[in-house]
Amino acid sequence: MKQFIECMPCYLTQVISALKLTDIDEKKQCEIVKEVSKIYSDINPEKTPAENSTLFLLEAYKHMGQPDPFKEAKKQSNRFALAFFKDMEKRVLKSDDPLFTSIKLAVAGNIIDMGINPDYDLDNSIDRALKEGFVRNDYDKFRKYLEKADRVLILGDNSGEIVFDKLMVRQLKNYCPNIVYAVKGGPILNDATMEDALEVGMDKEAEVIDTGTNYIGVVLDKCSDTFLRYFHSADLIIGKGQGNYESLEGTKEAGDRTFFMLRAKCHQVARHLGVELMDAVFCQNTVE
Amino acid sequence: MKQFIECMPCYLTQVISALKLTDIDEKKQCEIVKEVSKIYSDINPEKTPAENSTLFLLEAYKHMGQPDPFKEAKKQSNRFALAFFKDMEKRVLKSDDPLFTSIKLAVAGNIIDMGINPDYDLDNSIDRALKEGFVRNDYDKFRKYLEKADRVLILGDNSGEIVFDKLMVRQLKNYCPNIVYAVKGGPILNDATMEDALEVGMDKEAEVIDTGTNYIGVVLDKCSDTFLRYFHSADLIIGKGQGNYESLEGTKEAGDRTFFMLRAKCHQVARHLGVELMDAVFCQNTVE
Repeated sequence: MKQFIECMPCYLTQVISALKLTDIDEKKQCEIVKEVSKIYSDINPEKTPAENSTLFLLEAYKHMGQPDPFKEAKKQSNRFALAFFKDMEKRVLKSDDPLFTSIKLAVAGNIIDMGINPDYDLDNSIDRALKEGFVRNDYDKFRKYLEKADRVLILGDNSGEIVFDKLMVRQLKNYCPNIVYAVKGGPILNDATMEDALEVGMDKEAEVIDTGTNYIGVVLDKCSDTFLRYFHSADLIIGKGQGNYESLEGTKEAGDRTFFMLRAKCHQVARHLGVELMDAVFCQNTVE
Repeated sequence: MKQFIECMPCYLTQVISALKLTDIDEKKQCEIVKEVSKIYSDINPEKTPAENSTLFLLEAYKHMGQPDPFKEAKKQSNRFALAFFKDMEKRVLKSDDPLFTSIKLAVAGNIIDMGINPDYDLDNSIDRALKEGFVRNDYDKFRKYLEKADRVLILGDNSGEIVFDKLMVRQLKNYCPNIVYAVKGGPILNDATMEDALEVGMDKEAEVIDTGTNYIGVVLDKCSDTFLRYFHSADLIIGKGQGNYESLEGTKEAGDRTFFMLRAKCHQVARHLGVELMDAVFCQNTVE
């Protein structure tokens, strides 16, 4: 998904959400925003919002002298989500279709995103996810890919949310034992990194790798060769959240084997998906 | 109200809302946004959001080669609001306190603002205004000023909304015959200008003047001497909408005689007012 012009102000909004987590004084924060705004000159409108946004954030991190302003917030969201885990797993196991329930809950977890909406309501998201399911739903197609898959690659999104993904990983293993979970290669916003994966015990459920880069989503020409080997050899790919959707949707590299799971947390992604703001979708990638 | 750092992305959002009304192609629109983003270097965080935002818009208008992109939208909103006028006036006249009802409706009209929220729901705003009134309400203090006033100056805000202000002007005249209504001296966003005032017949209800500038709100050092004479000699000033609040709130020049009427249409103004987003307020200016 290439950027909409309406995405452009949001690049600064994300920088400000990072600045707000620091103890940098307001005057200096404003100076940093002014400095970072120079990046607008380098914006390529043919690139994805994920990639353009990353340029702003990495520049801001440089000026802030803080490589990981979301560090503490990420820990908090992991702990917050872990408190829900046992109850959520009970709901999964009791349900008629545990795999589908676990997928719905993994998308409910996608609400945990301090980069876009710091004021999330997880309880509400869980209730809504279980009741409403998906506005776009390619679960049947997904099952066909899963039944033939030797290796499933999950592209993770946020910290906190990664706890909910464990539910899905456990269910996926009933169909395919070889599950690989990819986190970011370095800190960016509140995206899950190896530290988060270890903190929530994802390494006990799946093989955990990283993308080799801290770009939001999966920007293939920034990823490590190791990651690319996993990416190209996977039979089924699950891309969680807006960043993965923005960067891989419509690409040949992702192909028909990629399914996106997300809540449309901004107007532009909702518009691109053809859904309403905050709708949950589970859709197969389409390549023209 | 000096800018919050969170106001900064919104300067571009407003530029984009103007661009979207033109037939300029997307690629050129993006180039204009990139060009206009250079203004961030000139931002003074001690200035108000109204003033900083104006710098962006005027620069954008230059690059767009269009001095009034909201021209057609303004006409539409005037016609749209005029269709409500008769029914609204009946409601005013039937009510227990026609002046207060007309004030509530004048604030309901403040929802008509394509600069910030193009998707307004006027019916809903009217119902809500009549039912809920104001979260902050200095009507009693306002009445005391009104009863002693020889001249009332109303600082208008948006086109469309100006139709609802006519209701209030008619009621105010029962207390003070000398009502002056100020519009912008030139086009900026969808703010009412002399053209709008004449179109809705405001000149038949009040003396209409303009600020002598197309800056959003009332930026005193940009206003004409004629406007300043009216401003300084008014016994009671009504500042409608966010722009007037942003630019005059807390100033000695506005003083105790100024009352703001608005819906808090963005998080930062709501935060500054100590109310929730979209709450309606009617509050006296305070000077420390």
